[in-house]
Amino acid sequence: MRYESTNGNRIVFQLACVLLGGLLTFAAAVEEAPVPVSENSQACVDCHIYSTPGIVSAWKRGRMAQVTPEAALKMPALSRRISVKTPPEKAAKVVVGCAECHTRNPEKHKDTFEHNGYSVHVVVTPGDCAACHPTEVEQYGQNLMSHAYGNLQDNSLYQSLADATNGLQTFENMKTHLSKPDPEMDGDACLYCHGTKIEVKGLKTLDTPDGEMDFPVLTGWPNRGVGRINPDGTKGSCSACHTRHDFPIEMARKPYTCSECHKGPDVPAYKVYNVSKHGNIFAAMGSRWTYDAVPWTLGKDFTAPTCAVCHVSLVVNDEGDVLAERTHRMTNRLPLRLFGLIYAHPSPKSPDTTVIRNLQGLPLPTELTGEPATKYLIDSKEQAERQKTMEKVCVACHSRSWVDGHFARLKKSVQFTNDMTLTATRIMSAAWKEGFAKGPAQKANPFDEAIEKMWVEQWLFYANTTRLASAMTGADYGVFADGRWYMSKNIQDMVDWLKMQRQAE
Amino acid sequence: MRYESTNGNRIVFQLACVLLGGLLTFAAAVEEAPVPVSENSQACVDCHIYSTPGIVSAWKRGRMAQVTPEAALKMPALSRRISVKTPPEKAAKVVVGCAECHTRNPEKHKDTFEHNGYSVHVVVTPGDCAACHPTEVEQYGQNLMSHAYGNLQDNSLYQSLADATNGLQTFENMKTHLSKPDPEMDGDACLYCHGTKIEVKGLKTLDTPDGEMDFPVLTGWPNRGVGRINPDGTKGSCSACHTRHDFPIEMARKPYTCSECHKGPDVPAYKVYNVSKHGNIFAAMGSRWTYDAVPWTLGKDFTAPTCAVCHVSLVVNDEGDVLAERTHRMTNRLPLRLFGLIYAHPSPKSPDTTVIRNLQGLPLPTELTGEPATKYLIDSKEQAERQKTMEKVCVACHSRSWVDGHFARLKKSVQFTNDMTLTATRIMSAAWKEGFAKGPAQKANPFDEAIEKMWVEQWLFYANTTRLASAMTGADYGVFADGRWYMSKNIQDMVDWLKMQRQAE
Amino acid sequence: MRYESTNGNRIVFQLACVLLGGLLTFAAAVEEAPVPVSENSQACVDCHIYSTPGIVSAWKRGRMAQVTPEAALKMPALSRRISVKTPPEKAAKVVVGCAECHTRNPEKHKDTFEHNGYSVHVVVTPGDCAACHPTEVEQYGQNLMSHAYGNLQDNSLYQSLADATNGLQTFENMKTHLSKPDPEMDGDACLYCHGTKIEVKGLKTLDTPDGEMDFPVLTGWPNRGVGRINPDGTKGSCSACHTRHDFPIEMARKPYTCSECHKGPDVPAYKVYNVSKHGNIFAAMGSRWTYDAVPWTLGKDFTAPTCAVCHVSLVVNDEGDVLAERTHRMTNRLPLRLFGLIYAHPSPKSPDTTVIRNLQGLPLPTELTGEPATKYLIDSKEQAERQKTMEKVCVACHSRSWVDGHFARLKKSVQFTNDMTLTATRIMSAAWKEGFAKGPAQKANPFDEAIEKMWVEQWLFYANTTRLASAMTGADYGVFADGRWYMSKNIQDMVDWLKMQRQAE
Repeated sequence: MRYESTNGNRIVFQLACVLLGGLLTFAAAVEEAPVPVSENSQACVDCHIYSTPGIVSAWKRGRMAQVTPEAALKMPALSRRISVKTPPEKAAKVVVGCAECHTRNPEKHKDTFEHNGYSVHVVVTPGDCAACHPTEVEQYGQNLMSHAYGNLQDNSLYQSLADATNGLQTFENMKTHLSKPDPEMDGDACLYCHGTKIEVKGLKTLDTPDGEMDFPVLTGWPNRGVGRINPDGTKGSCSACHTRHDFPIEMARKPYTCSECHKGPDVPAYKVYNVSKHGNIFAAMGSRWTYDAVPWTLGKDFTAPTCAVCHVSLVVNDEGDVLAERTHRMTNRLPLRLFGLIYAHPSPKSPDTTVIRNLQGLPLPTELTGEPATKYLIDSKEQAERQKTMEKVCVACHSRSWVDGHFARLKKSVQFTNDMTLTATRIMSAAWKEGFAKGPAQKANPFDEAIEKMWVEQWLFYANTTRLASAMTGADYGVFADGRWYMSKNIQDMVDWLKMQRQAE
Repeated sequence: MRYESTNGNRIVFQLACVLLGGLLTFAAAVEEAPVPVSENSQACVDCHIYSTPGIVSAWKRGRMAQVTPEAALKMPALSRRISVKTPPEKAAKVVVGCAECHTRNPEKHKDTFEHNGYSVHVVVTPGDCAACHPTEVEQYGQNLMSHAYGNLQDNSLYQSLADATNGLQTFENMKTHLSKPDPEMDGDACLYCHGTKIEVKGLKTLDTPDGEMDFPVLTGWPNRGVGRINPDGTKGSCSACHTRHDFPIEMARKPYTCSECHKGPDVPAYKVYNVSKHGNIFAAMGSRWTYDAVPWTLGKDFTAPTCAVCHVSLVVNDEGDVLAERTHRMTNRLPLRLFGLIYAHPSPKSPDTTVIRNLQGLPLPTELTGEPATKYLIDSKEQAERQKTMEKVCVACHSRSWVDGHFARLKKSVQFTNDMTLTATRIMSAAWKEGFAKGPAQKANPFDEAIEKMWVEQWLFYANTTRLASAMTGADYGVFADGRWYMSKNIQDMVDWLKMQRQAE
Repeated sequence: MRYESTNGNRIVFQLACVLLGGLLTFAAAVEEAPVPVSENSQACVDCHIYSTPGIVSAWKRGRMAQVTPEAALKMPALSRRISVKTPPEKAAKVVVGCAECHTRNPEKHKDTFEHNGYSVHVVVTPGDCAACHPTEVEQYGQNLMSHAYGNLQDNSLYQSLADATNGLQTFENMKTHLSKPDPEMDGDACLYCHGTKIEVKGLKTLDTPDGEMDFPVLTGWPNRGVGRINPDGTKGSCSACHTRHDFPIEMARKPYTCSECHKGPDVPAYKVYNVSKHGNIFAAMGSRWTYDAVPWTLGKDFTAPTCAVCHVSLVVNDEGDVLAERTHRMTNRLPLRLFGLIYAHPSPKSPDTTVIRNLQGLPLPTELTGEPATKYLIDSKEQAERQKTMEKVCVACHSRSWVDGHFARLKKSVQFTNDMTLTATRIMSAAWKEGFAKGPAQKANPFDEAIEKMWVEQWLFYANTTRLASAMTGADYGVFADGRWYMSKNIQDMVDWLKMQRQAE
């Protein structure tokens, strides 16, 4: 037998190429209506196609570079991708180009600088996006995420945890000393996801291919954290999920985007999803789905939930009936906060959680013994309503008894993890009381000693993981992978530690 | 230079669309033979297309909704997807619809209930699937997996481990107390993968869009664990791997399905595969493979193994010669049980491992010091035969010296991990003997104290991981990621703990 | 409503199939120029298509089986995939088949054996690939990777770490004893990635389908580690990244290949990439990219970096301007070695790091207190140049202030992780000094005791992870997942351990 090429049909293929080539040449010759790019944006592109070609090509690929707001408004209501009633006059008849975003509201932007005759700002913000997407920006502003900076930075207790995690420790005379973390390095730690505070600290002259130019010096830059404090005073960064500069809705709908911040042991939502049946279907069959259809049709465009399906997207059935409304206030389908600090609890009323105080006066949504600070949390009626909104998505593919069984289990798992956290907290309290560690009563950082860090892992890693694994039907993850096994082991380790301290005394 | 749209060929594209549209319109007008759906199934669909549209659309997509058993039987032997010789008469000439599964054998199903005039059951079981796939169901029944419920729940020692993992611990007077786990929550823990026991606890009336209806109340529901105890007395759930309701063979052949249960630190087969060359080829090139061809042709349909290639699928070469037979008794290519409890050992003879007793009388396949309970395990001849069956797959792409070198190393790694486990067990035994922990001799749970949990991690996590990493050529995973490093560190930690206890005395 | 098949257009589809089938039949009949396979390679294929069909089909798929070196040389310079000026005469006009690699330089190959009348060698090496790719082989030889075997095996300190990780520990009389690891098992541990030493230990007669044949017995086989010591005296294995036997450039460019060795906690580059925006874009949009274009065009072929974009590939913009040169000396874009041992430090001058000695005489690139062994490391000028080469890639998509901000943070994170390592080292030194562990001063293995292993994790896992997370903008990974949290906790655990030892004395 002789070896024969598998390319036996090459000649026919070449013939087809010649024909197709001719057709395309003809097509290119046909005069077509140019995409209406504004003069200002064209001026940007003319230089930046050389200086930052990756940005320009990304923008060209995107829908914003193809469609004018005016055209976008002509879509039927369910298919509409912008929520403004009347787009800004100057922007309505041109596609959304560089200038439409980077020169919007120049007076509000402290990062506006003179750039080749234009008043350009560096940081595009929800305030800018609101020109066409006001509903989404408004909803997002009611979301915990948009307050992620302040909720962390303006809560003294959470700051203690951040300090104990990111601060420099030194060692001398058998003692360690903890310093405050370098604020400039914080963008590499918690604030990477929570968002930095971006402030303008003057101008800097840089040598560019087009000669010397001035650029603003920004603190906390670069960053696209979900609660970023922007130079125009707004909060958040739409590009956290809607990746620049092509902003494909496909990316926001795929779970990889969420995984950027929801994968670590403190909130392993993506890892849990990955081992769930839902995640398996996405991984195995998702390459056949359509990710950019609006509305998003169950069974036709996709066949199992991604994060967006349950938490954000406008979902319809084959007949166009709405199964779930679009929302950018993701918490409106979440009765409980599963990865809240220390204990799971009803969702907070206000996205600004810095207002919360428990009975002890601590800025926590529960007591140290687990009872919820009810005054600041949604009541059972609101919980039931949110639960119902979520279940509307579930029942599209699952029977009522399936859904009821699932949530009955979650309830038990929430109780179990709270109970196991309470046990760990009791051991912790004993250590504080007996003087083996310094805690709140001593006005000391309650998260900086060895035993305290074991306690932290009980709730921040293991209880959170177990709950998420239950909630998202990826329960295997919550047994041995950062889940029940570790909750159980950690309690024994804590008791063991306490006993040794007492024996050694 | 002016910016030019990349959509230069839009007009030609529109022209093509018009032409294609015409063609499709014509096609739709052509009379075609309807898919023969049974009347009963049609009745289901007529309502459920509204009440659970996701299920109906999934079913429509699948092969079962397209092909009748009669047509399936006409395929040549190697391409046949059903193993029954004569399908049930009523089902032979219709596609496999809702009623064909959910009303099969109603008298055997304790979960059968009256539903709009039909005797419907909720839980479809291997007993139902056997109507068309008897060989697969029979083989699967000889598999360890199908016994996963009893093998865990009816083994007192394994139950101690489950209790120590999932039970609630409380803390009082410097002591912890362990309670039995809530059985209803078990479906969120071990039984999520092992399978729950589904029993009928009466009927419940629910308000539905079509008025009040009665539905059975089931314990352990929902669940699709591999050893589920079903209301018709059968074991297992085909949908664990053959995902409802489209049942694509593509999913069963992709490793994501296996990862649902084989990813945690106790059995990280998927993680090891991921860093192996095999897994890399799948990840990088797998989007070009054909996953639904039967038989599955090496080099044409796929170019590197997934889990299914080595453990389950019917694999042929270009000429149609069989390289590996299809089997649903996955253990028949496995001479050793690598992630057995405590020590690796020859595979058990019976899929029901509850019959096993070691010389000490413990329900374990080895002594606590590692010697195999040979009476219950396959002999060296059977091991050699299984090894040979597995190697048949390897040699299709690897030279004999490659394969021999690989398995010689695995043998050494199995010995090494068993030896490292023995060392940990000796330290554990010393702790038990010296009274620092309470073990089997005191009839105490041997898995519930701090030092015992370290011992458990030695074999359950680290030795298992190291062996899998060796077996599946993802050896990098077994060095620092839950592998040799941790086996080595854990022994030092255990000795360290023991020394401190003795010093503190 | 009646259920209607979604396959309404089946008849038109069948019609199209008939037409297409006819066309293909015609095409197959057209006489075409055969691919010029050498006679020797054809002889190999004639048997191996039966004995190892997977290998033959892989080879047939690849570019090497389609293109002769002569044809490859006719490509324009930027598109050329071979770097030789004049290919070996006998090989120039045939495609690269079995014999072209496996019978090249037979006299240099100690693994050459007589096989059906041919002098064949088992292990294809960089020396063989250099026949057509001399530049790549030469660059790779200057790379740390090509020296990965000796850099590990010929460094006494690193050997101590390998021994402490992979050696068998036994337990007797409250003491553990550490043995040297089995060298044959090393291919399952460190040498899996670093590469084994392949030596010929005689011949073995095997029974094959074609009768008895002799094959060489090789130590360390199979292996494709990056620094493999080959039987022809060369170092490395091109197939580590360029997967046999189709060698698709697509695989080398996808991050999965790198993940085979860069995923564990010691160097989790892939995991960090995965949670970065770059990795997210690849995961979500990468199925639309073109991976086999040479050169590789930013914005057209790909829209975000994979590992190869920043470290290896020839990258151009739309106009064909070179943004980054191709290099197989990956270190030439790396000013710092981030996952060096103990502390991050400037990259070593020589790829052979066994020459390095610090002031203390230890084979380490820094002192135990972190100061770099400058004599052996690149100077600040060379660092600046490498930094500039790397930044050239960044600025194609990011503004100068973005890039500056990013690297300013990395600098801080490098300092922080080095400082946290210093703190851990000080605790370690105190333990050594006070006699609670035996270290370098006692000429003892400094990595084999419990406290020493805690110290190792500080730098090998946690500091490395934190730095990589900073460098590759996947900073979330470096907070709680093996990052800052663990650095911080580990210091407290170490101090805690030391205090307990002192108390118990």
